[in-house]
Amino acid sequence: MKVLILGIDGYLGWALALRLVKKGHEVMGIDNFYTRKAVSEIGSDSALPILSMQDRIRAVEEVFGAKIGFVEGDVTNYELIRKVVDKYRPDTIVHFAEQRSAPYSMMDVEHAKYTMINNLTSTLNVIYAVKEVNKKIHILKMGTLGEYGYPAFRIPEDAFVEAVIQGVKDRIVVPKWAGSWYHWSKVFDSYILLYANRLWGLTITDFHQGPVYGTRTSDIVTEELFTRFDIDDVWGTVINRFCAEAVVGHPLTVYGSGLQKKGFTSLEDTITALTALIENPPEDGEFRTVHHYREIKTLNEMAELVKRAAKEVLGYEPEIVHLPNPRVEPEEDLLYEPEKKVLPKLGIYRLTRAMEDEVVIMLKDLKPYADRIRKMQALFRPRVKWRD
Amino acid sequence: MKVLILGIDGYLGWALALRLVKKGHEVMGIDNFYTRKAVSEIGSDSALPILSMQDRIRAVEEVFGAKIGFVEGDVTNYELIRKVVDKYRPDTIVHFAEQRSAPYSMMDVEHAKYTMINNLTSTLNVIYAVKEVNKKIHILKMGTLGEYGYPAFRIPEDAFVEAVIQGVKDRIVVPKWAGSWYHWSKVFDSYILLYANRLWGLTITDFHQGPVYGTRTSDIVTEELFTRFDIDDVWGTVINRFCAEAVVGHPLTVYGSGLQKKGFTSLEDTITALTALIENPPEDGEFRTVHHYREIKTLNEMAELVKRAAKEVLGYEPEIVHLPNPRVEPEEDLLYEPEKKVLPKLGIYRLTRAMEDEVVIMLKDLKPYADRIRKMQALFRPRVKWRD
Repeated sequence: MKVLILGIDGYLGWALALRLVKKGHEVMGIDNFYTRKAVSEIGSDSALPILSMQDRIRAVEEVFGAKIGFVEGDVTNYELIRKVVDKYRPDTIVHFAEQRSAPYSMMDVEHAKYTMINNLTSTLNVIYAVKEVNKKIHILKMGTLGEYGYPAFRIPEDAFVEAVIQGVKDRIVVPKWAGSWYHWSKVFDSYILLYANRLWGLTITDFHQGPVYGTRTSDIVTEELFTRFDIDDVWGTVINRFCAEAVVGHPLTVYGSGLQKKGFTSLEDTITALTALIENPPEDGEFRTVHHYREIKTLNEMAELVKRAAKEVLGYEPEIVHLPNPRVEPEEDLLYEPEKKVLPKLGIYRLTRAMEDEVVIMLKDLKPYADRIRKMQALFRPRVKWRD
Repeated sequence: MKVLILGIDGYLGWALALRLVKKGHEVMGIDNFYTRKAVSEIGSDSALPILSMQDRIRAVEEVFGAKIGFVEGDVTNYELIRKVVDKYRPDTIVHFAEQRSAPYSMMDVEHAKYTMINNLTSTLNVIYAVKEVNKKIHILKMGTLGEYGYPAFRIPEDAFVEAVIQGVKDRIVVPKWAGSWYHWSKVFDSYILLYANRLWGLTITDFHQGPVYGTRTSDIVTEELFTRFDIDDVWGTVINRFCAEAVVGHPLTVYGSGLQKKGFTSLEDTITALTALIENPPEDGEFRTVHHYREIKTLNEMAELVKRAAKEVLGYEPEIVHLPNPRVEPEEDLLYEPEKKVLPKLGIYRLTRAMEDEVVIMLKDLKPYADRIRKMQALFRPRVKWRD
């Protein structure tokens, strides 16, 4: 298949490109390197060193004997995306070209606006490009389980759900409640995609995951193929940050009580799921909501798990500290079990490996880069507060 | 009270400024004259001639002996809005500074993006400016009843509602479903405001109306005080367009079956309601949803009403034509009765005058400008289609 990845230079974008190439698909990508710039804007860097795109593509050619197409550019530029879609005629467009950090979106008004404008503009450009060029192109969009908040009902894996309101039965869009401007931009994206589906019959997969963790996939067979790995307070997701902290003897920084539940998925399992969704697109004109998470854990459970693995790999038990939670989020008594049916039907339900084993691999991967990580350790502590 | 009107040059903005000044309030406004530019972009103009802002302010001084403050600028510029709020310290900010046409938002990808970016950016700037300067400033935001779509349940006048989903009772944001990018931008605005209320305790009135009609309010006592009046397919709301069509002997252009129901409100009643909401703000930190409409009518009923009034004022009965509906909207069997409780409690429930009488005034107001309107009559027919 021909796959166009928007945001191919990112954590998931690059890892997905490798998997698709390895499986014999044709891959084309667009990126404006915004994440690289924004990460260095806050004085941080990927903990694992990554090559320039030119060198990445060269490395892929050497290892897999396949050529990845690449256009440097911004998906908020409509003419660019329309031209690339028109010329390349992909079967699927994977849309990762969004600002993906909740703390970044909460820094101040300019970061809030950047997040909202960038994310909604890119999504509007994608749907219009597909509408203009070929309505049958499958759009696979990265959302987040964070769009739902923590409702009392079990979150259905569907765009719509039956609800009784004021004594009347109706079909409504599954209710959402986000916890940052970043998460709201994803909620709005989902509405935009759903409207485009109803209005123009576009074929869409709206894919929702929780935090991803992991330093590699089975395709990352040399250091030259590394995907980026962020560890600071703004760009690093929680388990990735815990592992980096452990490697340099920094306490594991849990926000608040640590009772917050998240649906975690490893990078390996994420890429496997995305590939299955690309290879098994929805019907023409279908809007397919997909939930993906492997283990629902509290932050405390994750910290304990990293602590145990650190003892095994690093020979010491890191301290666990609880910091005042900079976010505004519910911390306790959370029902959290979003429905999953699409991926299991595609045979995607088994963990590649247990979380403990994945964390062991992560610590081993990060250990050689301890000096690099140590330079960034001032960035572990959260600086962006949701409330003044 | 001190009131800052964002979008003071618009149809409602200007009419509200006049009412507030007349009632002895201090008024300050911001506008970038975007509507003037965008209306001329499609070759149209206000059917009633309006003065420049400089001359408008002079006319107000002559008629009411009061000075309106004005800053030309764009509310998407955060520094501008923050400085004005900081310097002027209003009790209430009325936020009209949004792209307000559904067809305009559906013209193409650039108009879709402009609408989304402009509207969400201005709203984010307003909430951040209030958060930074003084959280107690009341934000009164113009939304639309179109945010709700046409649900089966009676639309509650609240941000949240109880719902039973998958057998579980929960409190959810009142479900919404918009019918254009413009309407979606308003839905997203409402979420942004609600989140700002929950996160920072901002005091907000989220005001939802249907289409407004009318050439004047009781404060528009000379032609120099006219507010703008749009009549083309993009900027003119339906009754206003019908009246302009009647004045030049053009058939009344009903979209589709004409069975679409809307909650109409006259300009006079709109301004009275807005003034009451400004003079009676919510409690500190309250989020107040307000619905306002006076008569729920189908488009066919409105066309018939204009036809009858035309016979009385103009001495002839215009033809009514049904055009293929350029919009995608449900046309039949619509339950449509959003709850109203806030404004009646403030004593705002009586019509200033019957619709028939208002339409008679409109036709009389427009008649002297028939030649001006005739030049624009090619613009009555809809050119923007929701689907290709």
